[in-house]
Amino acid sequence: MVLVLKPDHDPKQLENLTAWLKSLGLDTHLSVGRYQTILGLVGDTSLVDIDMIKNMDIVETATRISEPYKNANRKFHPDDTIVEVAGNKIGGGHFQIIAGPCSVESEEQICTIAEQVKAAGATLLRGGAFKPRTSPYSFQGLREEGLRLLLKAKERTGLPIVTEIMEASHIPLFKDVDILQVGARNMQNFELLKELGTIDKPILLKRGLANTLQELLMSAEYIMAGGNEKVILCERGIRTFETATRNTLDLGSIPVLHEMTHLPVIVDPSHSTGFSRLVPPMSMAAAAAGADGLIIEVHNDPKHALCDGAQSLTPEQFAEVSSNVQKILPIVGKTM
Amino acid sequence: MVLVLKPDHDPKQLENLTAWLKSLGLDTHLSVGRYQTILGLVGDTSLVDIDMIKNMDIVETATRISEPYKNANRKFHPDDTIVEVAGNKIGGGHFQIIAGPCSVESEEQICTIAEQVKAAGATLLRGGAFKPRTSPYSFQGLREEGLRLLLKAKERTGLPIVTEIMEASHIPLFKDVDILQVGARNMQNFELLKELGTIDKPILLKRGLANTLQELLMSAEYIMAGGNEKVILCERGIRTFETATRNTLDLGSIPVLHEMTHLPVIVDPSHSTGFSRLVPPMSMAAAAAGADGLIIEVHNDPKHALCDGAQSLTPEQFAEVSSNVQKILPIVGKTM
Amino acid sequence: MVLVLKPDHDPKQLENLTAWLKSLGLDTHLSVGRYQTILGLVGDTSLVDIDMIKNMDIVETATRISEPYKNANRKFHPDDTIVEVAGNKIGGGHFQIIAGPCSVESEEQICTIAEQVKAAGATLLRGGAFKPRTSPYSFQGLREEGLRLLLKAKERTGLPIVTEIMEASHIPLFKDVDILQVGARNMQNFELLKELGTIDKPILLKRGLANTLQELLMSAEYIMAGGNEKVILCERGIRTFETATRNTLDLGSIPVLHEMTHLPVIVDPSHSTGFSRLVPPMSMAAAAAGADGLIIEVHNDPKHALCDGAQSLTPEQFAEVSSNVQKILPIVGKTM
Amino acid sequence: MVLVLKPDHDPKQLENLTAWLKSLGLDTHLSVGRYQTILGLVGDTSLVDIDMIKNMDIVETATRISEPYKNANRKFHPDDTIVEVAGNKIGGGHFQIIAGPCSVESEEQICTIAEQVKAAGATLLRGGAFKPRTSPYSFQGLREEGLRLLLKAKERTGLPIVTEIMEASHIPLFKDVDILQVGARNMQNFELLKELGTIDKPILLKRGLANTLQELLMSAEYIMAGGNEKVILCERGIRTFETATRNTLDLGSIPVLHEMTHLPVIVDPSHSTGFSRLVPPMSMAAAAAGADGLIIEVHNDPKHALCDGAQSLTPEQFAEVSSNVQKILPIVGKTM
Repeated sequence: MVLVLKPDHDPKQLENLTAWLKSLGLDTHLSVGRYQTILGLVGDTSLVDIDMIKNMDIVETATRISEPYKNANRKFHPDDTIVEVAGNKIGGGHFQIIAGPCSVESEEQICTIAEQVKAAGATLLRGGAFKPRTSPYSFQGLREEGLRLLLKAKERTGLPIVTEIMEASHIPLFKDVDILQVGARNMQNFELLKELGTIDKPILLKRGLANTLQELLMSAEYIMAGGNEKVILCERGIRTFETATRNTLDLGSIPVLHEMTHLPVIVDPSHSTGFSRLVPPMSMAAAAAGADGLIIEVHNDPKHALCDGAQSLTPEQFAEVSSNVQKILPIVGKTM
Repeated sequence: MVLVLKPDHDPKQLENLTAWLKSLGLDTHLSVGRYQTILGLVGDTSLVDIDMIKNMDIVETATRISEPYKNANRKFHPDDTIVEVAGNKIGGGHFQIIAGPCSVESEEQICTIAEQVKAAGATLLRGGAFKPRTSPYSFQGLREEGLRLLLKAKERTGLPIVTEIMEASHIPLFKDVDILQVGARNMQNFELLKELGTIDKPILLKRGLANTLQELLMSAEYIMAGGNEKVILCERGIRTFETATRNTLDLGSIPVLHEMTHLPVIVDPSHSTGFSRLVPPMSMAAAAAGADGLIIEVHNDPKHALCDGAQSLTPEQFAEVSSNVQKILPIVGKTM
Repeated sequence: MVLVLKPDHDPKQLENLTAWLKSLGLDTHLSVGRYQTILGLVGDTSLVDIDMIKNMDIVETATRISEPYKNANRKFHPDDTIVEVAGNKIGGGHFQIIAGPCSVESEEQICTIAEQVKAAGATLLRGGAFKPRTSPYSFQGLREEGLRLLLKAKERTGLPIVTEIMEASHIPLFKDVDILQVGARNMQNFELLKELGTIDKPILLKRGLANTLQELLMSAEYIMAGGNEKVILCERGIRTFETATRNTLDLGSIPVLHEMTHLPVIVDPSHSTGFSRLVPPMSMAAAAAGADGLIIEVHNDPKHALCDGAQSLTPEQFAEVSSNVQKILPIVGKTM
Repeated sequence: MVLVLKPDHDPKQLENLTAWLKSLGLDTHLSVGRYQTILGLVGDTSLVDIDMIKNMDIVETATRISEPYKNANRKFHPDDTIVEVAGNKIGGGHFQIIAGPCSVESEEQICTIAEQVKAAGATLLRGGAFKPRTSPYSFQGLREEGLRLLLKAKERTGLPIVTEIMEASHIPLFKDVDILQVGARNMQNFELLKELGTIDKPILLKRGLANTLQELLMSAEYIMAGGNEKVILCERGIRTFETATRNTLDLGSIPVLHEMTHLPVIVDPSHSTGFSRLVPPMSMAAAAAGADGLIIEVHNDPKHALCDGAQSLTPEQFAEVSSNVQKILPIVGKTM
């Protein structure tokens, strides 16, 4: 951290500040220039409240120059993390397509879709059992029953399953689930993240609607600090002023995250755009931008789906997207 | 809900759509114009997924024209809701000031501040026991011990207490807390909201960083749908491109919320701006804009506070803000 | 436009409203439902101020259901517009790469880069002569002299040139320029747009930092309303809360614009991201998302460029991007 | 400016960098720490392209620590600037209310409103002659004729006039106008700003919809660098994800701008909110937050106004706002 001191700072106050920083375990390094005096802090500054420093009488500006995340930081872990689920690798050049319905609705529905997406190239099955809905009057998912039906589909097709968890106390219910998803609205549900750090299962962590990439990595850090290093990041669009799409898919986040972290990065083109007709071009763009995978909504009857039918592809549409995406992969050095 | 149909829509598809809408309990009303054909839906459209409708082949646009919230809607409840806590009324012309430290740190700290803010005009005491922090390496609050100390301060001063709850399973720990606060990051933690709907305590619901006013009311609706109608809304700034302040305090939300809902609306000028020197002008602006109260961070030693010292006022600064705010109240027809 | 009237509206006021709408040349269509009364407006509603209508005593909500742009609207012009510049076609399946330096700095510089980008696959040359800079103390471009040097480079290489115009009174200076660019900051400089509507040259119109796609089309409409239909739209990133990239490149705008309008859509991956290392993945993503072209900054000595060196590729890097983008084109049905 | 160098930087490259910085007239100051090497740049860094520095091989991060604006900077000009127009002072404790219609429509209209707003406390008259409209099909203002009518109203009432200029070539037409307004869409029309820097009239500079406060001051700097120091800043709302109001009025900008600059800051509560019923609370909030003035739309017949009727107050409503605002001024130490 670098502090620029006010030109007329009181030397006594500077002495106090330095003593206090030492008490936090930090070394300081003073550079007195003609126009500016700079105080550099060396050591583990992740414990320092930068806003408090900025508010001090003698400080003009304070700037953090090292990242506040460690376990997720590529600097300390240069090689790509590869998360493996039942033989399917994500990251490090390995690309996977996760597909399935927004909500699990019935055994027939989930098993049929599972077979269809598998035939079309999906290697993992998604499906919502616990559903976060903006309205208390909307369908909230089949919950435990939904998990049971997902496991049936897994049994039938062999596809590992990915589904959303909304509360720490539900963890025991997810013991047979392959990848636990944390939704955008829970990206900073820290009590949940802490508990997920204590289990030994891959976590698919979605970026919050208004969260920076650094905050996404801080949430990954919550999980990793607990000992669980199998975190898959997911870009799913951010909230902006533009209303033509549901959210603004930030594909620039893919190469930026690949610089910041060693964790794999996948993209959700369905929730981010909100319209099924935008899923094919955005899936291809995500692959071309270097994503490590996709999570796509597919429904055998989108017009009658109980939730988010608008953004679901039919199995036929999905098969075409899957095929086109696979043509892009060799150009970007990925395999599936 | 109003649908505009595509000019060349297939009459058979229109028949199917109408039949399906009837099956949802809605009446339809068709207007065939020279240039456009409009289908109006009458009845409880809160169950209809508008995105799904928009995606239908024969539909050009779909627009929701009635609000998806009921219990929180001023239309169905024209009079202001007044939430009363130990004799302190919030809403309906009654203004309250909630003050206290970001975090509870020790018995001495919380009791001293409680006495100071009471002397300066605060009528409720705030203080964080369970703290949502972006970094897993930051101080996470004294948790249960923090609640115990808050109750000590209440005992000493008589001030009712307001503190944040982060997870449904913690509710029993909050049985003696007067107002349970839901933080911005948990505004759409629907499992938590559902549980808070089943208890008989006022809930202070903070607006999420990227949430619209309608979404804030939908979250209030989650609580109210469970039977708990004592919801106090709190504007605390939204995330925008501007970085000169921590967040952008949206004071226009006050008169807009007062039109949309009968629930009281208070403002947090501390977290929204992030700098203590901005708290006085924003507190006064909030009062002038018609807020029903303020929640302000005060610390007896902001430079050494364990969290968010940067945005905390000293007790002396708080006393001045409190006094100035009280000069504004009669101009806007409020009493304290 | 559809108005929902207040339940208790005064019939006399409705009569007045209807009369006034008729005076604007609109037909009205009243639907009286059990719960709601809807007034549909039929005719050219682009002249109606929707905010004024929303503010009327008897109106609860008002919704525009037809687009306020005509010439740019795909509905009235279903076929793709193809803009042709010296034999290079943009749009309708034709893809072009525009490349060159941020600023023209010297004859040697612009001619050298022109030859290099031509060799690497660029079909048009860009280069700033008049430069919009945030600071009055930054280099403002060589202005007239810069235009002269661009024409030298065109003479030398045969590449048509694209350069930015900042004020209507400068139009005569641009008489030999092939494509006039309107920058993001001038997207709503309506006096400039009106004048550009009267000339017979293609206009490259960049999306403003905080402008919706509809507003972009309204600005295109300003040009087209004057008679100039050769408008090329350019996505160049929008301003959001995320600071890891300079702007957030909104690639979802490509398929959405292709639905809304028949005009070609190109992408600027250099200004949007602000970092040269993000240009290759975003160029490929733009091509995969269906863009009709790219405009890329290339500099033979980025470290010493007078402006925006940070986002410029070297000619070698550009050659690699160009080659990779061309591998994507056949997958999305485009040719170059 | 402070650069953090990469841990393994090549000493030869550092030497080159230092030499290049010296050639720009900057001194450098190297601090070699155990974990980090920091290079401080001392001198006028406003000429350095920070993005280019960030992109250098040996640089990890670069941070600007001094503001890029000089003339507008309060550090170099600690006293409030007071802009005086025909005896009306703005800034330095002096508060003014500018009022009038969105557009000038007729002599009778503008003269009637001028008399009404003067009677209700307005000290300057606003009115649009040249109108920036999103749609080319909307009323574009009476232009020259509008200016003539404004001067009639000034003659009749003695109120100085404020009106918008959209293009540099129009400056001669504004020779009798008292304050020239630069609208939000032209805040970064640098060719216009440069020309306004050469005249001797106060400029009312509105913040752009997506512009930071620093960018607002950089635009003020364009005017001041030309010699015209009479700049009045105007907060008029920024574009965010929230759609309940037209824009989000950022009242926190008032105290922040007062810290950054000595220039007066006024607020436009009409355009920012878009609804007349929100103008009274936001006017009062702006005064309470420390604004130096207000610019408010008033129309004698809002329902038939040719533009933006929705946000205009009636003269009676304006009189009430004016009276209430004047009750707030003494509390914040302002006089009118």
